Amino acid sequence: MTSTILDQLRQMEAKLATLETKLKASEEKIEDQKTKEKPKVAFSVAADEGGNYGPFDADKTMRYNKKITNIGDAYNMSTGVFEAPVDGVYYFIFFFRAEGKHPSGLILCKNDNPVIMSDDGQASYDPADTGGNATVLELKKGDEVHMRLPKGNHVWASERHTTFSGFLVSQN
Amino acid sequence: MTSTILDQLRQMEAKLATLETKLKASEEKIEDQKTKEKPKVAFSVAADEGGNYGPFDADKTMRYNKKITNIGDAYNMSTGVFEAPVDGVYYFIFFFRAEGKHPSGLILCKNDNPVIMSDDGQASYDPADTGGNATVLELKKGDEVHMRLPKGNHVWASERHTTFSGFLVSQN
Amino acid sequence: MTSTILDQLRQMEAKLATLETKLKASEEKIEDQKTKEKPKVAFSVAADEGGNYGPFDADKTMRYNKKITNIGDAYNMSTGVFEAPVDGVYYFIFFFRAEGKHPSGLILCKNDNPVIMSDDGQASYDPADTGGNATVLELKKGDEVHMRLPKGNHVWASERHTTFSGFLVSQN
Repeated sequence: MTSTILDQLRQMEAKLATLETKLKASEEKIEDQKTKEKPKVAFSVAADEGGNYGPFDADKTMRYNKKITNIGDAYNMSTGVFEAPVDGVYYFIFFFRAEGKHPSGLILCKNDNPVIMSDDGQASYDPADTGGNATVLELKKGDEVHMRLPKGNHVWASERHTTFSGFLVSQN
Repeated sequence: MTSTILDQLRQMEAKLATLETKLKASEEKIEDQKTKEKPKVAFSVAADEGGNYGPFDADKTMRYNKKITNIGDAYNMSTGVFEAPVDGVYYFIFFFRAEGKHPSGLILCKNDNPVIMSDDGQASYDPADTGGNATVLELKKGDEVHMRLPKGNHVWASERHTTFSGFLVSQN
Repeated sequence: MTSTILDQLRQMEAKLATLETKLKASEEKIEDQKTKEKPKVAFSVAADEGGNYGPFDADKTMRYNKKITNIGDAYNMSTGVFEAPVDGVYYFIFFFRAEGKHPSGLILCKNDNPVIMSDDGQASYDPADTGGNATVLELKKGDEVHMRLPKGNHVWASERHTTFSGFLVSQN
């Protein structure tokens, strides 16, 4: 009788050990999924200089000084540079309004290299006009994105016409 | 012999109880992650009035009457108002086409306050033109977003040129 | 004494079996959440033909030949067609630059049917201008999205002004 009981005990010990191992694996998977939740990175900023901004004698990094949203503080309001906080796929979009007295345009740069741009020729009749563009970029942590105002160009910086927005689409 | 068996039984009971507690914790974490899955909120609508819409004597809420997509029904087709179904970060974008006979422009409003805008001056020569803008907004459940057509302005509302789209980027 | 031990053993066997069943259910839920992680689908392409592209005698599918990003390879660089790899909600945006010598415009098509468009009338004075539009579409796996250049229209295809981008917002 006792030997049968001991057999049963041994079998149950083995089952318990197996369950323990499986549960540990389960717990690790749960933690793994938790850490994979993408961080919150999203910004939307506007340039407000009270009217026309530019033209200048040299290229200039746009500093959008009105914060609409800046979750994760990846956009630096004082330098105008967005720095990727994690490896991932990011979406960026910009719009500007411009009058026709001078050429107008903006260039989106990744680590100082132009990626996409939008411009608007000089026009003698001087109406208001909208430019803009959007892109999806795969960035490494620390990669920088900013908007460049090329020398000789201007934009209208008032009433939140001229904006720059972006967010993390998926983490790598 | 029997006392050894009883000892083993007690140890196994204790192990079982521990496993039971850990499993319950695991199950709760899994449920927790499930409820954190962001709800599906995404819309894209177009204004179709058969041609020019406006100008009017007063500001008007745009009612985009052609549904392209409205997952979650957060955009109310009859009032023109988007209502945030959950706290979170939302992305919005609008475009419009306009002819030059009258000023044209649209303002994106959060709870009736202007956030971003786009306009196009009146032009004597009357060509077609595109305006638009985009933003990322952190909204509380129940916050409202709509597009305002300012008095005296018009847009071209036909053939799905003039659109308003948005989606939930991440839930808070 | 032995009968008490046997009773305890039977109770523990039952508890173990219950735990085993619950753990299996847990593991399945974890796997289920894993497979629900949305696949990575995001692209951004630009048209570069060295200058003006078009007008042509017939409608043409735009082939954006400069790859900025194409995660998941859902955008076919040689045909110009995006094919949805999974059922889900997708976001698309396009911009173009055009000069005024000819009409300019682009139409976003889902399975060859126009969804949204943007155009710019011919203008004698010939300035540069920006057009664009964006939409959110619910697509079935295999649905196709492409940009159509209507016959008689042209766009400026150089320096990454004229772009087409999109990504998966949420999987169905």
